Amino acid sequence: MAAATSINTIDPRDIGTPDDWIPRHSEMVRLTGKHPFNAESPLSLLMDQGFITPVPLHYVRNHGPVPKLHWDIHRLVVDGLVSNPLNLSMNDLENLPYKEFPVTLVCAGNRRKEQNMIKQSIGFNWGPAATSCAIWKGVPLNYILKLAGVNLNDCVNGPRYVCFSGVDKLPNGFYGTSIPLEWSLNDVNDVILAYEMNGERLTPDHGYPLRVIIPGCIGGRMVKWLSKITISNKESDSYYHYHDNRVLPPEFDAERATKEKAWYNPNYIINYLNINSVITSPAHNEYIPLSSFFNNQMYTLKGYAYTGGGHKITRVEVSLDNGKTWLLSKLDQPELVHPAVLKRRINPIPRYWCWSFWSLIIPFHSFIRCEEISVRAWDSTQNTQPRNPTWNVMGMMNNCHFRVKVNTIPQGNEFRLVFEHPTQPGNNPGGWMVKPSPKLITSKPSDVSTINSQIPTFTINEVAKHNNEKDCWIIINKKVYNCTKFLKKHPGGTASILINAGKDATNEFTAIHSTKAIELLKGFYIGNLALLQSKL
Amino acid sequence: MAAATSINTIDPRDIGTPDDWIPRHSEMVRLTGKHPFNAESPLSLLMDQGFITPVPLHYVRNHGPVPKLHWDIHRLVVDGLVSNPLNLSMNDLENLPYKEFPVTLVCAGNRRKEQNMIKQSIGFNWGPAATSCAIWKGVPLNYILKLAGVNLNDCVNGPRYVCFSGVDKLPNGFYGTSIPLEWSLNDVNDVILAYEMNGERLTPDHGYPLRVIIPGCIGGRMVKWLSKITISNKESDSYYHYHDNRVLPPEFDAERATKEKAWYNPNYIINYLNINSVITSPAHNEYIPLSSFFNNQMYTLKGYAYTGGGHKITRVEVSLDNGKTWLLSKLDQPELVHPAVLKRRINPIPRYWCWSFWSLIIPFHSFIRCEEISVRAWDSTQNTQPRNPTWNVMGMMNNCHFRVKVNTIPQGNEFRLVFEHPTQPGNNPGGWMVKPSPKLITSKPSDVSTINSQIPTFTINEVAKHNNEKDCWIIINKKVYNCTKFLKKHPGGTASILINAGKDATNEFTAIHSTKAIELLKGFYIGNLALLQSKL
Repeated sequence: MAAATSINTIDPRDIGTPDDWIPRHSEMVRLTGKHPFNAESPLSLLMDQGFITPVPLHYVRNHGPVPKLHWDIHRLVVDGLVSNPLNLSMNDLENLPYKEFPVTLVCAGNRRKEQNMIKQSIGFNWGPAATSCAIWKGVPLNYILKLAGVNLNDCVNGPRYVCFSGVDKLPNGFYGTSIPLEWSLNDVNDVILAYEMNGERLTPDHGYPLRVIIPGCIGGRMVKWLSKITISNKESDSYYHYHDNRVLPPEFDAERATKEKAWYNPNYIINYLNINSVITSPAHNEYIPLSSFFNNQMYTLKGYAYTGGGHKITRVEVSLDNGKTWLLSKLDQPELVHPAVLKRRINPIPRYWCWSFWSLIIPFHSFIRCEEISVRAWDSTQNTQPRNPTWNVMGMMNNCHFRVKVNTIPQGNEFRLVFEHPTQPGNNPGGWMVKPSPKLITSKPSDVSTINSQIPTFTINEVAKHNNEKDCWIIINKKVYNCTKFLKKHPGGTASILINAGKDATNEFTAIHSTKAIELLKGFYIGNLALLQSKL
Repeated sequence: MAAATSINTIDPRDIGTPDDWIPRHSEMVRLTGKHPFNAESPLSLLMDQGFITPVPLHYVRNHGPVPKLHWDIHRLVVDGLVSNPLNLSMNDLENLPYKEFPVTLVCAGNRRKEQNMIKQSIGFNWGPAATSCAIWKGVPLNYILKLAGVNLNDCVNGPRYVCFSGVDKLPNGFYGTSIPLEWSLNDVNDVILAYEMNGERLTPDHGYPLRVIIPGCIGGRMVKWLSKITISNKESDSYYHYHDNRVLPPEFDAERATKEKAWYNPNYIINYLNINSVITSPAHNEYIPLSSFFNNQMYTLKGYAYTGGGHKITRVEVSLDNGKTWLLSKLDQPELVHPAVLKRRINPIPRYWCWSFWSLIIPFHSFIRCEEISVRAWDSTQNTQPRNPTWNVMGMMNNCHFRVKVNTIPQGNEFRLVFEHPTQPGNNPGGWMVKPSPKLITSKPSDVSTINSQIPTFTINEVAKHNNEKDCWIIINKKVYNCTKFLKKHPGGTASILINAGKDATNEFTAIHSTKAIELLKGFYIGNLALLQSKL
């Protein structure tokens, strides 16, 4: 289907959630159940849009409910180590000089599901579409900082940081993070406070009315619903600055990280994007009848690639023989000729903020002896992607070679080559990394005997009565849990449990939770679901 | 042995070459025969020096004879697109503001021998010691550029480049290269025109009296014997800017690169260093008697790591199980606490220009089931090294995991674990990547029949007479070649053949030359060496 550039209807899944006022595209794949809204476009649909992603199909990462803000009331405060504190309205900001240019945003968790197939991380199942590209317009951050009387000489006696805070109140306080002042002041880095996306005011999911855009950097630093900028000699003190967007060495699990304070090790912060590339054609489950091989047809392999820090993707290579040899693909870099880029001051631009597309035309018969198609990109730092993933406890920055398996499957009286991606996003089934019997929670509660007559059973109707903040039961894999006492401790916020209160939350739960959460859940077990529903 | 910080004696190998006036350290491993001087320190000796490498042990990359320059006469000209051309003496430069700080230099060919073991590239056999670290002092390039009236606004109508030229005349003109003006002007990039190294004036091998230092960048851009800076709207037009320091995709050989003008593809230039790490302890051929395993001894694995672009090495990991699991090593980053760094303006520094050292203490018994020790580093861009090398025609930027094999070898009436590096630099034998029967030239001239009586034979004494520019014969693998007509076309310069004129040049030749050169040589074949020397 063609993507609408704007959406007016409320998705039924949002009814009953705090976000029931926000129109959303029905095809977005939801990765954390109904709420909060964390979603990516189906990969092929995203690619069909080309260089610029329509707003409704742009990936979204929300930690909690979307704040309801108003252009005329919203203010931006700039304080801390500044000689001239500011308090600006949106109209003030809109009347300042601006920059407008395309930027590819990427969540640090892009392609996390591949890592979760090795071992569940503490993050949810992003597929390879946690990236999108839009035209962003906003005030250069360095302009605002100069208005506030900040300059590079302030760094003489030590580092300075620009701390951003949003208005979204979460279980561990406001979402916030920081970047070095030097980075913010350097005009070539193009950090802006954006109020427009693709030529229109931001939508609520993308930070309306104001968010930070830091090109070349992970999405997690680009604070949405921005209300405060504080200049400090310390990094942001937000819980999320330290407990999110980190890559810990593979030997760390969450417990050890907390015990050894690894979350605070400055070596483990993620700022720049790393090099990445993905195969989008063939798509998952796309197939070619073997009969096609007789007519000399060609196939065009396609995909995207991006890198961080303003570096340029310099080549993308494809292997059809498990990495023994690599074929040079054709690179398409629309950024280089985009009108919004060409009309900017420096031409050709010395920084690259957008994804590239690659393609390679091969004869069908190349697939005959091909077990898998893999892709890797290189950038102007002469670095490339590793072949294998390195698991880390947050499941972040996965950039191993993207490998699509080529399977031969009988169909009617002929054979097909069927392509298989490593995973599918969220709870969607399929993918060669998905083990035949996934370790879902089903295997876990088996240590609680289901035939022990001491264990109470509850009907669905009984459970349904416990559906509020003071009395909240949920059903997961036919077990009943009383989560009332846990509501306020839940890292995803009270709302994300409450929308499932009194209901079966198996899908929502298994989509996101780690072994640790599964263990924790056991403490709230109160009985089993009555098996004979029809009796009641 | 301890390294002398200065050397006064002429190495016998330099006698008879144009460099016979330059004192050099006798332990430096020469990689291109006697001349020109391309040399690295033995790896363990280099590591023994610690953070700062003494000048005589610092790796050297010379394309030809070293120019004989004088402080009092040498001038630096700054011209091109400048409003105020400059012509400065060394004393002028020494009286300008300066920066002084440690920088790790790396040749883009570091670790090339590993690539040459896959397939001979067009470059010579650097081991893993084509890197060193010194304190460099010089005038900030941006200061000089501002004196010349250059500023960032000059880039409004397109890019500007700073082109550097040395005075070293080579077969294809002066050595020169360029970097973007924007890079040169940004003070945080610390580009300097250096006249001191480790507190003393430069030595001839390191560019006396003036060279460029571009931290975070490959050595090939840091022009030595600098005499001219030209601001241009084009990159340097030096032959060496395009035909050196490029990484071409693996499918390109030299012929195809030239035919398709791949040397001029801007995607293939190398500027920044990529991430790299090396194991230095255990050294090659180091051994541990198995009897040591009974006394609970520990072994400390050690090595270096570096990255480019001012990024920070954030972790180094070691695998003892062929990459299945990785152990976090201890990082030692002397740059962070070096006095020359601490007294600079911004503290802690936001850019990292030096190598790091890593170590990991493991019990001896960890080696029992260990086939190989491998190392990989990560940097603040969240990129890491690939497991396998990607061959390229110049054999550059090799940064695959450095893998040391652990062999069990009987010795007397016990066993030893003997460690084996992938290669040894230059023509030095040893290393697990070295195939049992290396493809040396010996196999090549076999298509020229040695028993054909039509082929003339020459005695060593006869060949020795043809020892000058107008009549130059050499012996390679018992074949005689008349290279007179090739002298001026030789990419390494006339001198590098002439020093072997009339002599056996087998070692010098096989150290450097590609299959293509071997083919080319056949055209100069004139006969065989007389086998019975004693008769004459």
